Amino acid sequence: MVSEKHVLGMDFGTDSVRIVVVNAATGKEETNEVAYYPRWSQGKYCDAAKNQFRQHPLDYIESMEQAVKAALAKLPADTVQNIVGIGIDTTGSTPCAVDEEGTPLALKKEFQDNPNAMFVLWKDHTGVKEAEEVNKVARSWGGVDFTQYEGGVYSSEWFWAKMLHVLREDEAIRKAAFSWVEHCDWMPALLTGHTNPLTLKRSRCAAGHKAMWHESWGGLPAEEFLVKVDPLLKGIKGRLYAETFTSDVKAGELTAEWAKRLGLPAGIAVAVGAFDAHMGAVGAGITGATLSKIMGTSTCDMMIAPPEVIGTKLVSGICGQVDGSIIPGMIGMEAGQSAYGDVYAWFKKVLSWPLETLLPETTIVDKATAEKLRKEIEHKILDKLSEKAAQIPIEETGLLALDWLNGRRSPYADQTLKGAILGLTLGTSAPKIFRALVETTAFGARAINEQFEKYGVEIKQVIATGGIAKKSDFVMQVTADVLNIPIKVVTSEQAVALGAGMFAAVAAGVYADVHEAQKKMVSGFSQTYTPIPEHAAQYDALYRKYQEIGNMLAEQLRNL
Amino acid sequence: MVSEKHVLGMDFGTDSVRIVVVNAATGKEETNEVAYYPRWSQGKYCDAAKNQFRQHPLDYIESMEQAVKAALAKLPADTVQNIVGIGIDTTGSTPCAVDEEGTPLALKKEFQDNPNAMFVLWKDHTGVKEAEEVNKVARSWGGVDFTQYEGGVYSSEWFWAKMLHVLREDEAIRKAAFSWVEHCDWMPALLTGHTNPLTLKRSRCAAGHKAMWHESWGGLPAEEFLVKVDPLLKGIKGRLYAETFTSDVKAGELTAEWAKRLGLPAGIAVAVGAFDAHMGAVGAGITGATLSKIMGTSTCDMMIAPPEVIGTKLVSGICGQVDGSIIPGMIGMEAGQSAYGDVYAWFKKVLSWPLETLLPETTIVDKATAEKLRKEIEHKILDKLSEKAAQIPIEETGLLALDWLNGRRSPYADQTLKGAILGLTLGTSAPKIFRALVETTAFGARAINEQFEKYGVEIKQVIATGGIAKKSDFVMQVTADVLNIPIKVVTSEQAVALGAGMFAAVAAGVYADVHEAQKKMVSGFSQTYTPIPEHAAQYDALYRKYQEIGNMLAEQLRNL
Repeated sequence: MVSEKHVLGMDFGTDSVRIVVVNAATGKEETNEVAYYPRWSQGKYCDAAKNQFRQHPLDYIESMEQAVKAALAKLPADTVQNIVGIGIDTTGSTPCAVDEEGTPLALKKEFQDNPNAMFVLWKDHTGVKEAEEVNKVARSWGGVDFTQYEGGVYSSEWFWAKMLHVLREDEAIRKAAFSWVEHCDWMPALLTGHTNPLTLKRSRCAAGHKAMWHESWGGLPAEEFLVKVDPLLKGIKGRLYAETFTSDVKAGELTAEWAKRLGLPAGIAVAVGAFDAHMGAVGAGITGATLSKIMGTSTCDMMIAPPEVIGTKLVSGICGQVDGSIIPGMIGMEAGQSAYGDVYAWFKKVLSWPLETLLPETTIVDKATAEKLRKEIEHKILDKLSEKAAQIPIEETGLLALDWLNGRRSPYADQTLKGAILGLTLGTSAPKIFRALVETTAFGARAINEQFEKYGVEIKQVIATGGIAKKSDFVMQVTADVLNIPIKVVTSEQAVALGAGMFAAVAAGVYADVHEAQKKMVSGFSQTYTPIPEHAAQYDALYRKYQEIGNMLAEQLRNL
Repeated sequence: MVSEKHVLGMDFGTDSVRIVVVNAATGKEETNEVAYYPRWSQGKYCDAAKNQFRQHPLDYIESMEQAVKAALAKLPADTVQNIVGIGIDTTGSTPCAVDEEGTPLALKKEFQDNPNAMFVLWKDHTGVKEAEEVNKVARSWGGVDFTQYEGGVYSSEWFWAKMLHVLREDEAIRKAAFSWVEHCDWMPALLTGHTNPLTLKRSRCAAGHKAMWHESWGGLPAEEFLVKVDPLLKGIKGRLYAETFTSDVKAGELTAEWAKRLGLPAGIAVAVGAFDAHMGAVGAGITGATLSKIMGTSTCDMMIAPPEVIGTKLVSGICGQVDGSIIPGMIGMEAGQSAYGDVYAWFKKVLSWPLETLLPETTIVDKATAEKLRKEIEHKILDKLSEKAAQIPIEETGLLALDWLNGRRSPYADQTLKGAILGLTLGTSAPKIFRALVETTAFGARAINEQFEKYGVEIKQVIATGGIAKKSDFVMQVTADVLNIPIKVVTSEQAVALGAGMFAAVAAGVYADVHEAQKKMVSGFSQTYTPIPEHAAQYDALYRKYQEIGNMLAEQLRNL
């Protein structure tokens, strides 16, 4: 009976892995569990000042085991026995150097504490220079523009820039690295035992959006091009891949060893991995003319269109258009903002500075009480800021901010950009600044919508998932007002993991294709934010200023 | 015996009045007392969001009585009996509407709570529009440019803009106002009983720097000009003044009534008043080629030069050049920044928002403890920020700020300008922002020095007084580095009140002139901040960016 089949979605996010078990027939979530990456939680291997963010492969393994076991422990035994497939999404581009067996170098004793032997997290910007060089060669080398399906600008957040940066910086890694894998390639490879880097099934999504892979030029960029970027890249192509796979394809079957470790039936299907945003768009119910936004620390803005509609059209300045990266058979388009919730978290951190620096020094209360107070106040800052900011009329802040505190992802990726707050007076309060920060992230969102539309990709509705979409009424209303389009919030709290579950269901043969899986498994919408017409009009004017001042200042900000 | 004579300096600042009694022969401070303005302390009659800052005349009277009595109570009776004169300085331009007797309207029952009947504090910017109109007419009316000795740009911080704004806004005041007085005119008038607005001795300093008074056109601007600005100003000239006085002149003698109220000998000399910055420059020991800086919430940057050196030269963009405004017989030049310490105080206030909003809501500690904690932490914020910011290398903030959070006073007064912080990243910390704010205030200071030098007024040394100069090592070192000139900090903690004391001594006949008084009464220097050459070089480059970005953004900031 179809209704008894279940699938397991694994969603590897920035801080934690989330495991969801869903009924494959209905999409009903049976249980979900989250486990945080232990080393990452302690800030290990990272250096925020340098924008270096690395994750240890053991973080993934340990948290996965913990979360899967905890999830399964809450289910009846027959439900566990009816789990027929695993779908996996991860952040990306999050590549790692591996040896000839496909083992991430950090799993080897000699590299266990070397950040360059670890996964280079999506938001790591150490490869800014390398990305610039890729772009320079792409513009000048005289051959095909390999960045054309990635929006025409290569980003430091992506595969080649990160790989090259590590290769240049670390001679030991250079010698030991046989090949490289994306996090979303490695997890299915690990669970199915097919880790050989020459044969493991690589994600179309990761390859197409981040590694300049395209069928039209036979896979990865030409050797000549890569060597022009840096002779260090000579020969690497042959140790990477030419073929890629969409996530309706099975990467393999769960090995007996992993089945035992995780408490799952051995031999069940494990789907080819993809990025969280792409599977999330599927889980949210993406369809034509719909922008699917995942709104969290950053945003991922996804659209799909049939190949016959897109044709040979290139959407400039986005993070790529890849056949099958979201839904097999459709052109998947990705855009996004490098920071959304992270901008608010940044401001919270700035405001928390006195609490973190001076509260521990007090003798008025004991240390434990001081710590309790600090946590309580910090925990409430964003809610209180939202409450107060919502009461400020748009015209009263007198502020305009630029949202590029983590660079810009789309339109036109540029990690050298920085943020700004303009219009400060002695009367500028913390809630006014917060309001300006929320507005500028929404302006950044609008710039993406306008970019899609400029290139003829129509947006009829916006559907949203992610922490910001679910939790921040104020941010969502401002975003709807600025975009001047209704935003529907997806009911499922775990749309990304749900999307992974849909792919698991297809890979396991429960459904013939992703479209069928979506029809049965989507969760619907819990809420709609409708633009307030007067606000939309005011924001129209303010958005023009944002564009004008942003254009005017971009070069100056790059040089600060 | 000269050595037994004492003088009393009254320094009416932004928040409080300070009373100093000094030995007229030596400048030795016998005692000093401060009393805060009671209504002002409670934030009454002000609206920071509108930049409306008003002070009630009773605040001045009550705090003066309190501080004088407290100061005298600490002195031996024979010292009090040997006080021979009073010198008074105040903030300015701080004008107030008065009736035919010269009584500030707020002292009348019907106006006692009307902010428009009170003194319009120097930093009140409600007259931005009116200042623009003054400037427009000055540029277009075809006659003499009455702004030429006030730097060529009329400011909303000044007399006519404030007066006109109140007259336009408040019909009741318009009907009741016979004339207007500056705070520094009114205090000596009050104490000497000569409050008649038609005859009281008006300050040259206030008139020349803020009211477009100049000997060459026979006093205040032409009636025709004033009426062109607004017909409301018709006839007002005849109820103001034509003659003005330097502060070596006696305004009158202390009345028996005030002598009794204050506990001072009746009939002693009360000098004509002047602005705090001008008397402060005298108290600090200003001399040729010396920039005297008062560095507090804002800065006042004063220079003097003999008329034969200045000749007909006009220094553009400063707050005026007035014969005798600082030292009788010399051209006094005034410039300044609308916010210095206020910029740091603003940032402290932003950082205090969680403490002020969320700490009172906690139930972890009782209300009284929460309040104690709040006060303790807020009190320490600026010191801790300075400590941490000082450890950040200049190149590591990645930030550039514009210091116009309270508009710009010099060069080229423009209260419509606003501040900005550029170059923000997710790694930008509170101390980095603080460092950028300190640097930008120093850049603002440098812009003034360069303006003086551009117009041929050489600066060989900088002497500094005021709260920032005495208390903030970090700010002073950055300022010296940015200015690339040593800054000597004046020993006296009360250089402004000391300067008032010097004028008291001259008005009382103890000295023939201010120069003689300075020679005997100055305090010398307690410390010198010497530029660090490498920092100066780095700041040279950053200052160019400040200028470039400031010029680029000025128009945008005005329109936010």
